[in-house]
Amino acid sequence: MTAVVPPKIILDNLLKDWLLEDIGRGDRTTSGLFSADEVIPGIGHWLVKESGVIAGLPIAARVFQLLDERINFLPTVAEGEFCPQGTVVAKLDGPLDSLLTGERVALNLGMRLSGIASMTRKYADKIADLPVQLVDTRKTTPGLRILEKYATQVGGAKNHRMGLDDAVMIKDNHIAAAGGIGEAIAKVRERMPYPLTVEVETETLAEVETALEYQADIIMLDNMSVEMMQQAVKMIRQDNSRIQIEASGNITIETIRNVAETGVDYISTSAPITRSNWLDLSMKIQKLV
Amino acid sequence: MTAVVPPKIILDNLLKDWLLEDIGRGDRTTSGLFSADEVIPGIGHWLVKESGVIAGLPIAARVFQLLDERINFLPTVAEGEFCPQGTVVAKLDGPLDSLLTGERVALNLGMRLSGIASMTRKYADKIADLPVQLVDTRKTTPGLRILEKYATQVGGAKNHRMGLDDAVMIKDNHIAAAGGIGEAIAKVRERMPYPLTVEVETETLAEVETALEYQADIIMLDNMSVEMMQQAVKMIRQDNSRIQIEASGNITIETIRNVAETGVDYISTSAPITRSNWLDLSMKIQKLV
Amino acid sequence: MTAVVPPKIILDNLLKDWLLEDIGRGDRTTSGLFSADEVIPGIGHWLVKESGVIAGLPIAARVFQLLDERINFLPTVAEGEFCPQGTVVAKLDGPLDSLLTGERVALNLGMRLSGIASMTRKYADKIADLPVQLVDTRKTTPGLRILEKYATQVGGAKNHRMGLDDAVMIKDNHIAAAGGIGEAIAKVRERMPYPLTVEVETETLAEVETALEYQADIIMLDNMSVEMMQQAVKMIRQDNSRIQIEASGNITIETIRNVAETGVDYISTSAPITRSNWLDLSMKIQKLV
Amino acid sequence: MTAVVPPKIILDNLLKDWLLEDIGRGDRTTSGLFSADEVIPGIGHWLVKESGVIAGLPIAARVFQLLDERINFLPTVAEGEFCPQGTVVAKLDGPLDSLLTGERVALNLGMRLSGIASMTRKYADKIADLPVQLVDTRKTTPGLRILEKYATQVGGAKNHRMGLDDAVMIKDNHIAAAGGIGEAIAKVRERMPYPLTVEVETETLAEVETALEYQADIIMLDNMSVEMMQQAVKMIRQDNSRIQIEASGNITIETIRNVAETGVDYISTSAPITRSNWLDLSMKIQKLV
Amino acid sequence: MTAVVPPKIILDNLLKDWLLEDIGRGDRTTSGLFSADEVIPGIGHWLVKESGVIAGLPIAARVFQLLDERINFLPTVAEGEFCPQGTVVAKLDGPLDSLLTGERVALNLGMRLSGIASMTRKYADKIADLPVQLVDTRKTTPGLRILEKYATQVGGAKNHRMGLDDAVMIKDNHIAAAGGIGEAIAKVRERMPYPLTVEVETETLAEVETALEYQADIIMLDNMSVEMMQQAVKMIRQDNSRIQIEASGNITIETIRNVAETGVDYISTSAPITRSNWLDLSMKIQKLV
Amino acid sequence: MTAVVPPKIILDNLLKDWLLEDIGRGDRTTSGLFSADEVIPGIGHWLVKESGVIAGLPIAARVFQLLDERINFLPTVAEGEFCPQGTVVAKLDGPLDSLLTGERVALNLGMRLSGIASMTRKYADKIADLPVQLVDTRKTTPGLRILEKYATQVGGAKNHRMGLDDAVMIKDNHIAAAGGIGEAIAKVRERMPYPLTVEVETETLAEVETALEYQADIIMLDNMSVEMMQQAVKMIRQDNSRIQIEASGNITIETIRNVAETGVDYISTSAPITRSNWLDLSMKIQKLV
Repeated sequence: MTAVVPPKIILDNLLKDWLLEDIGRGDRTTSGLFSADEVIPGIGHWLVKESGVIAGLPIAARVFQLLDERINFLPTVAEGEFCPQGTVVAKLDGPLDSLLTGERVALNLGMRLSGIASMTRKYADKIADLPVQLVDTRKTTPGLRILEKYATQVGGAKNHRMGLDDAVMIKDNHIAAAGGIGEAIAKVRERMPYPLTVEVETETLAEVETALEYQADIIMLDNMSVEMMQQAVKMIRQDNSRIQIEASGNITIETIRNVAETGVDYISTSAPITRSNWLDLSMKIQKLV
Repeated sequence: MTAVVPPKIILDNLLKDWLLEDIGRGDRTTSGLFSADEVIPGIGHWLVKESGVIAGLPIAARVFQLLDERINFLPTVAEGEFCPQGTVVAKLDGPLDSLLTGERVALNLGMRLSGIASMTRKYADKIADLPVQLVDTRKTTPGLRILEKYATQVGGAKNHRMGLDDAVMIKDNHIAAAGGIGEAIAKVRERMPYPLTVEVETETLAEVETALEYQADIIMLDNMSVEMMQQAVKMIRQDNSRIQIEASGNITIETIRNVAETGVDYISTSAPITRSNWLDLSMKIQKLV
Repeated sequence: MTAVVPPKIILDNLLKDWLLEDIGRGDRTTSGLFSADEVIPGIGHWLVKESGVIAGLPIAARVFQLLDERINFLPTVAEGEFCPQGTVVAKLDGPLDSLLTGERVALNLGMRLSGIASMTRKYADKIADLPVQLVDTRKTTPGLRILEKYATQVGGAKNHRMGLDDAVMIKDNHIAAAGGIGEAIAKVRERMPYPLTVEVETETLAEVETALEYQADIIMLDNMSVEMMQQAVKMIRQDNSRIQIEASGNITIETIRNVAETGVDYISTSAPITRSNWLDLSMKIQKLV
Repeated sequence: MTAVVPPKIILDNLLKDWLLEDIGRGDRTTSGLFSADEVIPGIGHWLVKESGVIAGLPIAARVFQLLDERINFLPTVAEGEFCPQGTVVAKLDGPLDSLLTGERVALNLGMRLSGIASMTRKYADKIADLPVQLVDTRKTTPGLRILEKYATQVGGAKNHRMGLDDAVMIKDNHIAAAGGIGEAIAKVRERMPYPLTVEVETETLAEVETALEYQADIIMLDNMSVEMMQQAVKMIRQDNSRIQIEASGNITIETIRNVAETGVDYISTSAPITRSNWLDLSMKIQKLV
Repeated sequence: MTAVVPPKIILDNLLKDWLLEDIGRGDRTTSGLFSADEVIPGIGHWLVKESGVIAGLPIAARVFQLLDERINFLPTVAEGEFCPQGTVVAKLDGPLDSLLTGERVALNLGMRLSGIASMTRKYADKIADLPVQLVDTRKTTPGLRILEKYATQVGGAKNHRMGLDDAVMIKDNHIAAAGGIGEAIAKVRERMPYPLTVEVETETLAEVETALEYQADIIMLDNMSVEMMQQAVKMIRQDNSRIQIEASGNITIETIRNVAETGVDYISTSAPITRSNWLDLSMKIQKLV
Repeated sequence: MTAVVPPKIILDNLLKDWLLEDIGRGDRTTSGLFSADEVIPGIGHWLVKESGVIAGLPIAARVFQLLDERINFLPTVAEGEFCPQGTVVAKLDGPLDSLLTGERVALNLGMRLSGIASMTRKYADKIADLPVQLVDTRKTTPGLRILEKYATQVGGAKNHRMGLDDAVMIKDNHIAAAGGIGEAIAKVRERMPYPLTVEVETETLAEVETALEYQADIIMLDNMSVEMMQQAVKMIRQDNSRIQIEASGNITIETIRNVAETGVDYISTSAPITRSNWLDLSMKIQKLV
């Protein structure tokens, strides 16, 4: 599976804002050293300083392009490849001042996204041989959802819903407000765009039963024990083979395989986004003599 | 020291963008359950699910305000307070649908910022009794710098420069390009806004000496051994008592105290931003009967 | 069913842009007649000049609010009510100059949305007693989708997908490019956010069969004869009762009931958006003596 | 007369917003079928499915360019040409996925603008041999004024004022507020940018007389009978041959010629914008083998 | 005549941008001195440090409002009043930190606009008793046109066209390109929105004659001697009393009266915008004890 | 010293806004004369109509590029060169209509920036042989700070701080609010980003002494007599050779040399921005035959 790189028409607005966040009114160091008249050609490369899965190379390439179209950023490994410490993952060349000015924003993105992809890969590898799919959540850094969810794809997860508008998720608060699971599902189906799916969070087998009765499209088993999950999966499969089952809540690298073996279709976790370290990358630049 | 909350005129643009990122074309679940005509009053609270330093409460309050001015978000602890697991950190009330719609964005910010503040506090506590100050770096999540650097303040750090434009930082690449530390400093001083300071990265005592000779305002001791740092500090103090000294590179919770004891003025680290977990927070909401 | 009014955080950006489109550098007529110092109170009302379904009153109210918060716009009929010619649908009061300046933008929206709602209602009424639901399409005026789809809701339709990102729709071009319906469905499911549904356009019974085999979630019967639709519905219902069936293509006020009686779940048409006239509304304003 | 295509510096902002409105967070269907790595060349064409005047081809070309600069969109007929059903109006080639992603926005614009141009042409043709000019109004879809008024030009009309700021139009409400036509004209002339013209709406011959007396630049005969218009035209021509006369109000395809024959200079109608159907266009795409 | 203050819907976007230009990532001085928790009430006033015409008070009031709605800015003189040195022109109160943060942007606007108004007034006073009107030009500081033209109004001028779109101005380059004045006028009238006026620049009496022949609405006498202007005015008045005549080119405080006495209707000059000094204003603030 | 041209990523947003400010909904004159189909090649040049220092040529070049990438704008003198009246400073070629449409915005910028540079040069020349540096202030036209401060660089000044966020400036109001210079410096240092400098305004020698005691980085001598300045400089130099001294307040072309000879490091004045005339430039265009 190849991850879906967000299209330029979406990405460019974000990347320009982020360049401006760092540059502010100008890169005082670089513009102090180089005058606008003289173009000093430079070359450089990106180095992985700790082993991990690289993500964000096409994004970094676009950052540099938007800053200065004369920069070439050429990945030397495949996006999503596991890279041992010391791997050169990209080479780049262009005007030395632009390389220096764009460095931090591009690296920050590459480090953050690679960190996410690296932890996602660890989770995904644990269940790679089972008929179950790792998915992410809406716990993402504000403003970066589209890229952080791109990174979970690179790591081996599928995306869960991207926002509040591309699927319905009925949680305990919603159920309480609506007066019951059945009422909630009925009301929502009445008003939502019709092709959307309705997912219902359940914490007990009784709730699973009600969700089945009112024809939820996806049933989430939230914070259940492995045993309860097994029973829930059995109940659901007997009822309708096309309902999708998602396990969620406190998934760790230790527990994920047990959860997967209950036969659920999806396991969702925010850990690669909320609990991962940035992957350490550095950029080396030099004047082209 | 109280942290500086970014002013509304800066903050509001970011927060609105982030609400729109999550809401997209509409919150299908909530708008399916509640019609626009009926306002159902709700109440809720925020709960800390693992011990840590809380940060971001004024930001969360503003998120809800921008979504729906009828929401009140009232912190019940002080910003920056260490909260044991289970602490209620805020109470809120307002229209139930708006509480539900704003929940995720507000929590994501609170969790991320509290995670940063919590790790910053751990580092800061290690050196609290020494005449040295913890500072952050420009390794921040693109788009969130102003808030992530707010969180390091809440945790007990001071901010290093906020972008490429409020101070000069001359690194090895710059030195190479300019043809030497002296040339680099001279060129930059010529063109930068005059009240800015010039910081120079040094890796050897020889470089420290050159930086002194050319009157850098701040000398960074980068990746030096503790012994070399001690010597460097001595050299600099003898030369001029107003030059500021910053230690940087591979600062860990284990090594920070040793580094601090060398007598440097500042210790910079990106760890609270690149290596911290989000602090687990949750929001409980219910209909006001 | 009440239609879902888009939230202010989405709506306000659009409405402000549209006010500025009309106002440009200033309302020369009104600002020529009234000086900024003197506030002349005015009152007015909105009148329906041809019978139809009114839509857009909350939107018009917001237009005036954004222009001048002192304006009150009070609907005197319910949104979605059928109004005979001559009905007063709203009363408003506020500074006379602001009433005059905001008039055209507010009316243009009210007329366009009411025109859409009125034709939608005609189509919906034809099938009101049958277990089938009218839905809209992505043929909407660029920039106004969220409001035009709001108007179809007011008229009695449900929304189909809101954009390219909240559901998958596989058409003939996609099938050809992918090398077959089965390949297309498999590839898309691999990469799309998992809670999305996959709809497949079919034009023959053979295609319906393939769509069933590869487990499409929604099957569109596109431009089929009524007889073929009947057969298709039968085939699909036998296979799985939860697959949704949508009829599309050349639906007219004359044919819609026959199509509905084939037993499909949804009938989609763009006619209320591409073939409706604006409903004629006017605004009468006078100085409050 | 060739219509004036809005310049890119204005157009691009609109077109990008409209692409983003449709694409949202990504085209799930297309990005599911094609990976970013492989560029599959495609070709296609635009077909007119019902006879009419084509408008919007340069706009559609720009939509595709902004989405993907590798797309070529080549009109095969002249903008404004009357096209019998079945005419191919453009050919296009480029990456297949971009062709699919941009299709709907480009077609929606082409259909809407061609619908406007087609009805405008019908009205214009009725009076083509007379010394009178068809003009449009400010009843336009919010956000699309510049393009809808471009389409009326393509159809054969001239534009009336583009907004509230490029001419003055004094209506009954203004007159009432100002205390009379004379007072209104005098006040407005005092404060408006001096090169602007002042148009006054009149409904009786007495009002025409007053408008003449106070030297309106343009006199609108609003909702008058043909006979009254004839008298008004005579009165005005006797007074000053450079005053322009505009007939307005309930102009239909049946009445327009009679109105034209009264000798007015301009006839304004919103019908091509508020009462036209979209012209049915479709796009056929295929892989380039 | 009262000047037309631009409406908030236009103004606010500009003023917010300008506040952000100065504030950047935060007012380090003020936020260093005051913590967000403590609101210290302050009062202040604006003082005119050199005699002149005050302009921009409503704009300054809005600047402060947008920064902090708790600030009151109360003018103590009328907008447009001539103020001797030392006059207090406004009083203000509100949170001390916000007063300090907003000071520079508000003052910069007040000083610039008052400078323009002051010089405009000097020019206008020279011809106040003659039936001629001073007007401005499109030589305005980019981004400030709407406000600089507001200031010329405050000073006693009328606005000429506000941009390239609210009137036509045919200059020598246009004439050369079109192949003659007649051709140029005819072509432009064909395509421009019909209520616009056509102004033609003339430098000789022959050109005046042609402009008359082709029915220009406004004839500009550009850089003519006073004698030639007298002849031109005579020629034009004989032809048609409603053609407006504008004198332009090298108008100075010494020459303006002679030009006015030629009988032209308008005299245009950019001097108050391109050749005026800012009027010196200062703001005094103190803690409210 | 070469001035630092602001990078495209910052500049382009401003320049596009300014083009749109002038163009509005379209250049009626040019688009009336030329149809979009025909590209008429034109050439032109920029002429200095009064002697002065030229500034803004790279900015003007970018204005034209953003409007129409086919335009070439080629400076024929160096940025910052003193140009006698009549000098041709640039040649340009491209589509005639685009040359005409972009003319005013580009010229307005060139004239304003050259006016600033010209006056700055006069001040700078007066003190060119002394070890002192002219600097600007924050009195700049809202929205143009980055360009106006670019122009002062071109003229020979250095920039003072660019906004409220890149240095601290403690004035009398701040001191009063904080309860003294010492308290103010201490509080600010506690919370500001650490590499920033702290400048303190002083009006008496007593204040200079306090500023020294509390280790201000920069001491401004505000509105002092030349004698008092001499004493202040002596006091400060004795204390610490690295504190920078700035003279400010009522600097004129007559007094600047005396001030410079007191031995201060910097002299700040807003005169080139608040008291300069635009340098008269014109653009001549013709059809390329």
